[in-house]
Order: sequence, then structure tokens, then C-alpha cells
Amino acid sequence: MLCQGRSSPTKEKYAMEHNLIHGSISNIKLKLEDIQDAHNKIKNQIIATPLLDAKYIGKYFCKVMFKCENLQTTGSFKARGVCNLIANMETSERSKGITVSGGRNFLSAISYYGLQNSIPINVVIPKDAPLADKQRYRESSAIVKCLGCDATEASLHALNFSRDVGSTFVRSTDKLELLAGYGTVGLEILTQVDKLDAVLCPVGSGGLVASVLLAIKTLKPNCLIYGVECSLSPTVTKALQEKKPVPIQTKPNIADSLSEMITGTNSYNIIRGYLDKMITVDDTWISRAMVKLFEREKMFVEGAAACPVAAMLAGKVPELRGKNVVVILSGGNINSNRVAPIIERGLLAEGRLLNLTVTIYDSPGSIAKLIGRVTDAGADIRSISETKSAQKDLSIKVTLLLEVNDSSHGEEIQQKIVKDYTVSEINSI
Amino acid sequence: MLCQGRSSPTKEKYAMEHNLIHGSISNIKLKLEDIQDAHNKIKNQIIATPLLDAKYIGKYFCKVMFKCENLQTTGSFKARGVCNLIANMETSERSKGITVSGGRNFLSAISYYGLQNSIPINVVIPKDAPLADKQRYRESSAIVKCLGCDATEASLHALNFSRDVGSTFVRSTDKLELLAGYGTVGLEILTQVDKLDAVLCPVGSGGLVASVLLAIKTLKPNCLIYGVECSLSPTVTKALQEKKPVPIQTKPNIADSLSEMITGTNSYNIIRGYLDKMITVDDTWISRAMVKLFEREKMFVEGAAACPVAAMLAGKVPELRGKNVVVILSGGNINSNRVAPIIERGLLAEGRLLNLTVTIYDSPGSIAKLIGRVTDAGADIRSISETKSAQKDLSIKVTLLLEVNDSSHGEEIQQKIVKDYTVSEINSI
Repeated sequence: MLCQGRSSPTKEKYAMEHNLIHGSISNIKLKLEDIQDAHNKIKNQIIATPLLDAKYIGKYFCKVMFKCENLQTTGSFKARGVCNLIANMETSERSKGITVSGGRNFLSAISYYGLQNSIPINVVIPKDAPLADKQRYRESSAIVKCLGCDATEASLHALNFSRDVGSTFVRSTDKLELLAGYGTVGLEILTQVDKLDAVLCPVGSGGLVASVLLAIKTLKPNCLIYGVECSLSPTVTKALQEKKPVPIQTKPNIADSLSEMITGTNSYNIIRGYLDKMITVDDTWISRAMVKLFEREKMFVEGAAACPVAAMLAGKVPELRGKNVVVILSGGNINSNRVAPIIERGLLAEGRLLNLTVTIYDSPGSIAKLIGRVTDAGADIRSISETKSAQKDLSIKVTLLLEVNDSSHGEEIQQKIVKDYTVSEINSI
Repeated sequence: MLCQGRSSPTKEKYAMEHNLIHGSISNIKLKLEDIQDAHNKIKNQIIATPLLDAKYIGKYFCKVMFKCENLQTTGSFKARGVCNLIANMETSERSKGITVSGGRNFLSAISYYGLQNSIPINVVIPKDAPLADKQRYRESSAIVKCLGCDATEASLHALNFSRDVGSTFVRSTDKLELLAGYGTVGLEILTQVDKLDAVLCPVGSGGLVASVLLAIKTLKPNCLIYGVECSLSPTVTKALQEKKPVPIQTKPNIADSLSEMITGTNSYNIIRGYLDKMITVDDTWISRAMVKLFEREKMFVEGAAACPVAAMLAGKVPELRGKNVVVILSGGNINSNRVAPIIERGLLAEGRLLNLTVTIYDSPGSIAKLIGRVTDAGADIRSISETKSAQKDLSIKVTLLLEVNDSSHGEEIQQKIVKDYTVSEINSI
């Protein structure tokens, strides 16, 4: 039995599965012609997404353009790979149906293009997958099976299921047909921009960055290609350190669609020789980047897509000053229930929300006095809660979530409060 | 003194101000040439926003294309009007500086283009304006004054202030230079689309819809132009009923940037003769439309921009079946703190969140049993709270916020719960 209690995927378990499918590290198998061929095969089924100038990100530093794959058919670049994969399948394989497991973006894409091409799709996801995801796949007529306690277990269940029912099992990463499709992002960028010095790309298992790198460096060798991944799932960073793909233990993070446990071999073979820079960014910078993308650029993106912007905001690409930079907004498939906490986290990190727990003496008018103090200082109260505890003194704890102008305004308010009250916690969310 | 306590703007007060500025109802003053002239003057300072195909909205019903003014320089179409207004100002007027009051989108635009053109800008806003708004204007070097308890009072303060300091007062609505700028949205649409049967446009004081109507109907008379406004601020609907602009009492609503108290006279003169249909939509449909625009189209929009989509979702345009329809996404300047409650409201209205208050007997394991019941039925618990009250029986009230697949799934869960428990409230948020 695979699912015995709730456990994290282990490296051993993953390696076991991994060996079932992957070949060994060798030369680069993906060719520019494969990407050009994919472009011709899929161009009528996918969206040639717009390349839009940034209005705020990079202002006074460099020229930033967004390649809007969040506006792709199924909300991410995965549509391109899946569309090419299906276009290259034999009729006999198609007629057996396809069984898949993997991330939200891949599964949304394969469900959608399965329906478009009348191919039955079986999606296997872990038992705790979000309801909204299940519903999305079902809308595209996919059969959804909830098996296993995590992504690795679901993947093994999918493999077993496909054998049982005789359908075609498709791995969600590193297949050459997928990479060739992803690479069309690079081809399109080259037709959309005259001056191009660098491309910043979010990185999960490395498929997008590798294929875009291959397309662009072949045609425009001087263009820099940077990869950016989340510090809680540094898959490619680790592979580059170890000089081979190695399974890593990922931790839950905002850029969840990048949480791949191992770099794809085909991707690694491209990345290792040619990637100009690999950057990691933490959740705090990703949430700040998302707030900027929402508020200033009006771009609805998922955490993964915000990683390159996070790298810019965090000052990790000083060498790009004055350059023409394309940032790939890889996708926009964020769960609606996660939007609010991410915005709140970003505003806290920006210093525009301030969370304070203040101990006050419980006497008539004491809460009103505290409230008066913060509002007179120009803060706006978003929420207030109060805890009485059975202490020997008559103190109560009041927790305030305050909207302030910026971090220096927040600082000023803190100083005013600290003068008169005991502040036990600041920004603890 | 204007600000005596917190009162709503009265019709009388507004009419008083209104008469200071407006002319009488007469013939149409805006000409196509004004819009063409505006286009030439502003084209290098504004963004020719993309027209993007909808992926979900209108699917299986008609072809929808989004004119993305949310991606305009300052996040709304107002940039076009303000840019043209400034382009037409005499050097002497510019050098005195400009004093303004009005909505967020107008003030963001004038602050931005004031800075671009080295014109000092004084912004007068009510005392309770959101902090984030003030901060945005200040970032563009505007001087921000917080005067008056509401928009009308702020407007009167602005007028007085401009007289005191000798700066140029600019009204935020109905000026011909503004309308001519807004009309360039219509000109651009005509260059971006081959087949066009109808344009759906959000409506506040009527400036955008009137100017777009004039541009499009002059060049393509058979194209339908529809206006959509929020049922809590039915400004133009009321004007059309009364056959003249009349001040109305607006109520707080999700589409706050449309909350104008009176239709502009210049706009009304165009609308009354030529608008094909005027539609109102309620807050519930607007929140549902916003969720669809975020989730399915990855379009970050404000409530106003979602009104035409709300009209489509609510089935208010059945005659557009099979047509080619452009929806103007007028802006994306939504306060970050409002995003979460709007999404929650939209999901509740969609039936994807379910809010239940259940009375249970307070015995060991009773809450765990209730939780088991809802999770076994496939719901995901977003929040739970419990209230003990000093009643004669030992009952407690448990309030659950549940994520469910859709409304029929929610219905099924309700039925299961109702069988065993007393359900006192459903969807009360």
C-alpha cells in the first residue's frame, strides 16, 4: 500500500520512480528544429501571447518586458508543451487515452487539449489536492482519481493505473515533445522584440528555461538567459552544485508550481553548459513581487511567475542596469483562496501593513485611547482583537492589524506606541 | 465650514457645485475630429492597449475580446483624457499648477501626467480616502490635501483652494478635452478588430461610453454600443429616465470608480440619442464577474471594469449570441485590501464557498463529529468558529466556511447536515 499515513515524499521513493522513466545524462537531445517544428504544429491551437512593456518594475533601472504566458490558453506555458505532445502522438496511442499525474498547470493543459482532440484523459492527483483544481480538470471532461498522499505517490498510482487500463502514461516533465513546445516561447520572443539583452525565466524542473535557452541562444548567442527559482525548492541550483540532477526535499512555498523534486535530465544537459546565472528568491520577496505585479502592472500571476520580478526587486541582477530584459510570466493559475494571504504577506513585507500586539491595562476607555493613538498617527485599522487572560494584573492583550503609508510611517507609529505601551509582538504573521 | 460630522453628499449640495461648472443641455459638442486630434497628441504618451481574445467569458455564446485599459499607463482609460487635457492647456495655465478632486483613476492619471509634464498638481481628497491612494498620488509628487467628509465636499474645497492659490481648477468629468481623449479607445478598437458587432462599456458619469460611441458610430454606424452601470449608482439610467442629467444618491458598491452622482451634460447629449442599451448589474454579479476575470482570464481588474462581464454572465444581453463583442476593461486600480473580500463574495455567490451556522449539543467529540460529516462529504474547511452561549440547554453554535465544488455539491452537503443538525444561517456573509 502506498498511502500509509501522511508522509513527505522521500528521496528514495522518488529515485525509484525516476529510474523507471529517465535515461542517463548524455548530450543535448533537444534541437532548434524540434522547437521550430513544434511552433508550426501548435500555432493554431495556442495563443501567441503578448509581450507587454512593464510600467513600474525595473523603472529607472532597465527596460522590462513581460512575456504573458499567464494569458496562454490554460493559464500557463504548459499548454504549448502539451499541445505539441499530443500533436506528435500516434493515433493508436491517442485512442487508448492518456493517464497523467503532475502539477496543476500541466494537468489543466492536458485535460483541455485532451478534450479538444477527443482523447480520454485520466488525471491522478493526491487525496489532498485543492477542490478547485479537481473541478477544473473535470470541466474539461477528464476522469479525476484521488490516490496517494503526495505527488510522488500519485505519480506511481498513475503509472500503475495506466498499465491496468492499458492507457498511455505521460510523464509531466522532461519529455522532448514537451520541451520543444515550451521552447516556442523563446521563438516568439525573438519575433516580438528588436533589442534583447537578457531573459529571466522561472525554474521548476528546468524545462522552460532549458528550451527557451536553446531557442534563443542558437539564434541570438549574446542574449543572457537567467533562471530564477524559489529558495524552498532549489532543484536546479542543487543540480548545478552536484553536477547532476539530484532529488531534493522541497518545502511548501508560494511558488508551488515550481516545486519539482528533480531537474529533468534533458533540461539539465542544456542548462549545465549554457545558463548564464541561476538565482534563488525567498517567499517574502515572491509575495512582494506578486503585490507589485497585481497593483502596478495589473498582471494576475501565480507565485512561480513572480520569481524573476522578485529577483529584480531583491537587487540580485545589478548587472542588468540599462539592459532590455524580457521576464517570462510563466502562468496565472493561482488558487483564489490563496490570493488574500499572499497579498497580506506581501503588504506586511513591504511595510504597508503592521501587525502589533500591545498589552494595556484593562480600564474603561483604555482600548478607545489606544485606537485614538494609532489613528491620530495616520494608520488605518484593518482588524482588532483582544484577549483577556487570567493574570494577576488586569492587563489585556490587543492585537492590531494596521494599514500604514510605508515602512517609515510604520516605524514612526511603533515608536509612538512603544513610548506608552508594552508591545509584545510586531509583524508576527 | 463644510465638514460638520460625517454626512452623505446631498443632492442640493451637489447641484450647487454642479451649476458652477456645467452648461445647459444642448447639441453634441464633441466631434470625431476632436478625438482624432487627441489621438495624434497623446499617442506617444499613452499605451495602445492590447485587444485580447477572451478564453472563457462568452464561450459557446459569442466571441468576446477585451480592450485592456487596465493595462493603460496609470491603470485606467482616464490616462487618455488627462493626457489630452494637459496637451491642450496653455503654458500660462500649466505654470500656475493644477488643482483637482475626483476619483482614484482620474487623480492617479493627473498626478502622473503632471509629473511627466512638470506641472505642480494639488490633489484634494476626502479625509477618509484610502491610505494607498494618497501614497500613490504622492509618489507622483502631487501635493495631497485631505479636506471634507465626502467627494462633494472635497470638490468644493478644491475649487476654493484653487482660487486661493491661483492655480487652475480642473473638473474631473465632462470636459471636452477629457472626452476626446477617452474616445481614442474607440478609434483604437476599430484598428484592432475586423469583425465588430457590439461594444460593452462600463458607465460612471458617461464620459467613456459617450466618447467611444461617438468615435465608433461615426465610423461604423451599425456597431451596437451598450453601457453597463452598477445598480447602486445608476446615474445614466436615471438620466435617461428623467430625460436630463439629475443628481442621484449613490450607495457604496464594488464598482466604486463608477459612483458618479450625475451624468455629464456633454456625455448625456451623445448618449440620449445614440446609446443602444443601458444595463444595470448588482454587486453580486459584479463580484462573480471579477472572480471569472481573475481566475479564467488572468485579468486584474477593478469592479467597474467587471460590469460588462457581469451583464453577460447575468444573461442580460441574449441578443448578442454569435456576435463579435468588445468588452472594455476600463481599469485595474483596485485597493489591495479589497481584493480578498471581493473574491470571497464572488465565490459565495458562485456557490463555491458555503457559510453555515450549525447548532450542536456540547458533548465530547461533537465538533469532531460535525467536521467529519462535512469533510466526508467532500468539503474543505476554510474556517471554523464556535460560540458558547448561556442558554438553558447545552448547545453551541458552530460557524463553518466551507469550500465546495459547486452549488449542487453545496446543496448536497446542506441536505446531509440539515438531517442531523439545526442549521440557523446559510451564506450570511
